Amino acid sequence: MTFFEVTILPDDVQIKVPAETTLKQVFNDNGINFEFPCGGLGVCKRCKVSIIKSDGQVQEVLACQYKVNEDVTVNLPQKELKHAILSEGIDRHVAVDALIKKVYFELPRPSLSDNRDDWRRLINQQGIKTSLKVLQGLPEKLRQSDFKVTTVIAGDTVVAVESYDTTDKLLGMAFDIGTTTIAGYLIDLKTGKELCRVSALNPQTRFGADVISRISFAAESPEGLDKLHGAVIGEINNLIQEAVRETQYSNLDIYAITFAGNTTMEHLLLKIPPTYLARAPYVPVVTEPIIVDAAELNIKINPDGKVFAFPNIAGFVGGDTVAAVLAAEMDKADKLKLLIDIGTNGEIVLGANGKYLACSTAAGPAFEGVQISCGMRGASGAIDHVSLGEEYKYTVIGQTTPIGIAGSGLVDTVAELIKVGIVDKKGRLLKPEEIENDLGKKYRDKITTINGILAFVIAEGASGRPIYVNQKDIREFQLAKGAIAAGIEVLLKEYGAQTQDIDEVYLAGAFGNYLNPESACTVGLIPKVLKSKIKGIGNAAGAGAKLAIISRNEYERAVALSQKINYIELSSHPSFNSTFFNKVGFE
Amino acid sequence: MTFFEVTILPDDVQIKVPAETTLKQVFNDNGINFEFPCGGLGVCKRCKVSIIKSDGQVQEVLACQYKVNEDVTVNLPQKELKHAILSEGIDRHVAVDALIKKVYFELPRPSLSDNRDDWRRLINQQGIKTSLKVLQGLPEKLRQSDFKVTTVIAGDTVVAVESYDTTDKLLGMAFDIGTTTIAGYLIDLKTGKELCRVSALNPQTRFGADVISRISFAAESPEGLDKLHGAVIGEINNLIQEAVRETQYSNLDIYAITFAGNTTMEHLLLKIPPTYLARAPYVPVVTEPIIVDAAELNIKINPDGKVFAFPNIAGFVGGDTVAAVLAAEMDKADKLKLLIDIGTNGEIVLGANGKYLACSTAAGPAFEGVQISCGMRGASGAIDHVSLGEEYKYTVIGQTTPIGIAGSGLVDTVAELIKVGIVDKKGRLLKPEEIENDLGKKYRDKITTINGILAFVIAEGASGRPIYVNQKDIREFQLAKGAIAAGIEVLLKEYGAQTQDIDEVYLAGAFGNYLNPESACTVGLIPKVLKSKIKGIGNAAGAGAKLAIISRNEYERAVALSQKINYIELSSHPSFNSTFFNKVGFE
Repeated sequence: MTFFEVTILPDDVQIKVPAETTLKQVFNDNGINFEFPCGGLGVCKRCKVSIIKSDGQVQEVLACQYKVNEDVTVNLPQKELKHAILSEGIDRHVAVDALIKKVYFELPRPSLSDNRDDWRRLINQQGIKTSLKVLQGLPEKLRQSDFKVTTVIAGDTVVAVESYDTTDKLLGMAFDIGTTTIAGYLIDLKTGKELCRVSALNPQTRFGADVISRISFAAESPEGLDKLHGAVIGEINNLIQEAVRETQYSNLDIYAITFAGNTTMEHLLLKIPPTYLARAPYVPVVTEPIIVDAAELNIKINPDGKVFAFPNIAGFVGGDTVAAVLAAEMDKADKLKLLIDIGTNGEIVLGANGKYLACSTAAGPAFEGVQISCGMRGASGAIDHVSLGEEYKYTVIGQTTPIGIAGSGLVDTVAELIKVGIVDKKGRLLKPEEIENDLGKKYRDKITTINGILAFVIAEGASGRPIYVNQKDIREFQLAKGAIAAGIEVLLKEYGAQTQDIDEVYLAGAFGNYLNPESACTVGLIPKVLKSKIKGIGNAAGAGAKLAIISRNEYERAVALSQKINYIELSSHPSFNSTFFNKVGFE
Repeated sequence: MTFFEVTILPDDVQIKVPAETTLKQVFNDNGINFEFPCGGLGVCKRCKVSIIKSDGQVQEVLACQYKVNEDVTVNLPQKELKHAILSEGIDRHVAVDALIKKVYFELPRPSLSDNRDDWRRLINQQGIKTSLKVLQGLPEKLRQSDFKVTTVIAGDTVVAVESYDTTDKLLGMAFDIGTTTIAGYLIDLKTGKELCRVSALNPQTRFGADVISRISFAAESPEGLDKLHGAVIGEINNLIQEAVRETQYSNLDIYAITFAGNTTMEHLLLKIPPTYLARAPYVPVVTEPIIVDAAELNIKINPDGKVFAFPNIAGFVGGDTVAAVLAAEMDKADKLKLLIDIGTNGEIVLGANGKYLACSTAAGPAFEGVQISCGMRGASGAIDHVSLGEEYKYTVIGQTTPIGIAGSGLVDTVAELIKVGIVDKKGRLLKPEEIENDLGKKYRDKITTINGILAFVIAEGASGRPIYVNQKDIREFQLAKGAIAAGIEVLLKEYGAQTQDIDEVYLAGAFGNYLNPESACTVGLIPKVLKSKIKGIGNAAGAGAKLAIISRNEYERAVALSQKINYIELSSHPSFNSTFFNKVGFE
């Protein structure tokens, strides 16, 4: 391949690029701030720059169209670029270059010396597409508004033409479609600013709490899929209404939707039967990114708006994981990164330098508080931290009387019980008389038998009801943490890396944010050597969905990333089971 | 640009190609017969060839995907290629590579070691698109038919997936949508064979005989466009039914439609308002090729079928002209060619070597027999040829009693009257006593006054009614032929060429086929020096529509051609009027 040198003035930066690279690509790839109002289609002609060719000739070119085929100097004007700052556990600065754009045109009227057709008058550029619907309405639209119109552009397609200048109204909405919760973010696509956020329980919950029960429901009757699909679309439409009401916009001002969800959620949202996700070999119908008309999904935004789904990786590593990996910029990592998103399943991604592996472990819902005697979600009233030091301490979300124990509280409790010798290496909760550790002996009276099972009482809840962790809970917990830990180990082995090679561990999701890294390492959920490298990154899936709607480049990064992540099926992996059994105990 | 040499064995042909050219492109561009069942998408893997690289290494590659970036030798197996032979005035041999294809797959069943998603299992290739509808139906379709399915592919998009092997049913229908007549050709897209042809009067005729009156009708009321659109679609559906009934196929076996029509016909067919075509500056809404779902236009073929409209050039040079230019292969011309398609308007295209000019002259309908006293279409009963030699002769289409005179008969009559001195250079029909030419004197008794106008009686029709050409008809004729002749002259001038530079003159349409070249030159319709170069090419628009449906390459040639043809607006051309006045007389 032939390379040429591009010199960027006034900063005098030299960049080597392959032949045929556009200046837009050069700017994008090298973080050079420059605005492409029409997204680089060549229709708005507003990205003109002057270049100095190798023979000294000066020329004005469109940065989006000009291809480098010789050494060239680009004289860049000092421009201010709109940047959106995204703080969602991780800070990300992105240039605003939304998935949908508007460009306003004041066109010359037709004359005998300029009798181009209406479409060519509007878009004087080959290769830009449009719909028959736009063409059918075009002649009247142009003449009613004296040839002053705004085009709405998605990718290389003009999806709508509006009378006069409507560029001030261009909103998008990013959705994180969780199995339990749906979160939506209304974004001004001109500035990248978040206007408001809304959330609701996923109404599919009434057909089944987890993905497996919903897949069964969808497969059991012909109307099953319709009902699940209708439920999530209905709630999305409610959230859209709520968001625009709150910000005094109209739903017609929204032209783009992104959504990131797990593979099942995305299938249901797109009304694609998820049937075969629930049985081996757990095959999705599609993992590629899907872009469809909002109208096709009955989503009530502007009728010409588009919906962009995140690509999935496999049946149990979905678009939400891709969005999280995007938010964490793992594609730019040159040192090994580990991302863990713990929910009912634990999705784990390991990699750097363009090589990534992912797996999903059936951790079970212990960390979400399910199947744990006093377990609950990380909401008000949940014990989120416990410390069995010289002083006994615990904290409750919302500082109220405790009503249960959250996942992070469970991890803390087990970790502390191990430290003070109340739980042994095999996970057995010792009887008071068996405790040898001095500090442990202090907590002997908290050990009791409840419903015939030995338990450690953390606190007294409302009406004197004890909040506790029992032997059965600890066994559940061991299975869950063992699955995650084994997943990490198998990925490392497949990757050919050592634990200590990992440079950073990202914990995505609410659980990750609450989790005490020390406890996570004590219980062996995360290898001990990584303790100082753990970083909670919050709702990374939501952050990724927002990044994508603000920036086409981010959406394309997500797509590229999804294709670079190789899925490892643990259920058939030769060493997963033995690794798992090694990981259920404590060291 | 870097070039490499491709050597093709066993024929030992050397071809120089630019870097990054695919072998498919090399084969296509150099007329090398080779089959690409999926059209070069890389999905069927059936275009494997072995190549020998410059270092002597032998490798098997997909010809559609492999890009030449070094000198390479290709070992081509001797394959038999399906060729369609099209005889429609001009003979054309084209490789069958239809606009829509079917590829049959027998896929491996999913397993834990191969748990790709359904879509990736079907299409193991990036960049191939599909619809949400296909994905929604995919999991059941695959499993109902034991992973044996046929994909229907249009361009880079899978438009449908069918159970088991349906590759034997793949039809297309090419339409020539004339202002007066619609002709349809049912084609087997596997072989390129024409199965049957059907035709009908364009039912829009009841709303107006010519394009201008139809445009007015469409613009006058909100339902006008609906009615015209509905009428042509209705007739297309009738013709489809007629064709499949005759050949014992089903309309569901048809997956593609091409149509070539003038710009107004194409607008009406696509339900695009043609309003501004009828008034200066005669602006179409769109000239680019339009590809839409047949269902969107309510055309009753397979619901997943596609409609491909020919690109237009300008308001009065339409897709039918592009199709004719394609049929005549003017894009391959290295010597100057002139194409004339005479109807109500005369479309004229002049060019060679990638440079083409086109114009449309408002010739009026004289050549179609309209506004001529005894004029009629070139149908049974029409006098098509007349000779005023020592012996008086005329011929009648269908050898019946004459009922009128066709365009070609009109040209002959005027030409012969000039030759024998009965019509003078200014177009005046002499009175019997004014005739000086000896041969002319022989025909004195055929000159008489009918309805107060001097006329030349050609024959006696049924019930003794005379078939004649009168002074008014000759004046109409002069305007019509003057417009065409002036159009040719203006194009030559704009092209910077001389009349004698023209290598060949193609006369498209029925009129062109009947026309006597000698007479055409005598009356000055075509310059005299071109007499021996005139060639009737029949219904070239229909031929072009057929070529396109049989071969994607031909459709793409049409698109490329349409972009290379520059339109000259005669109505505002500075020298058209004076040229026209110079051309109305006879030399």
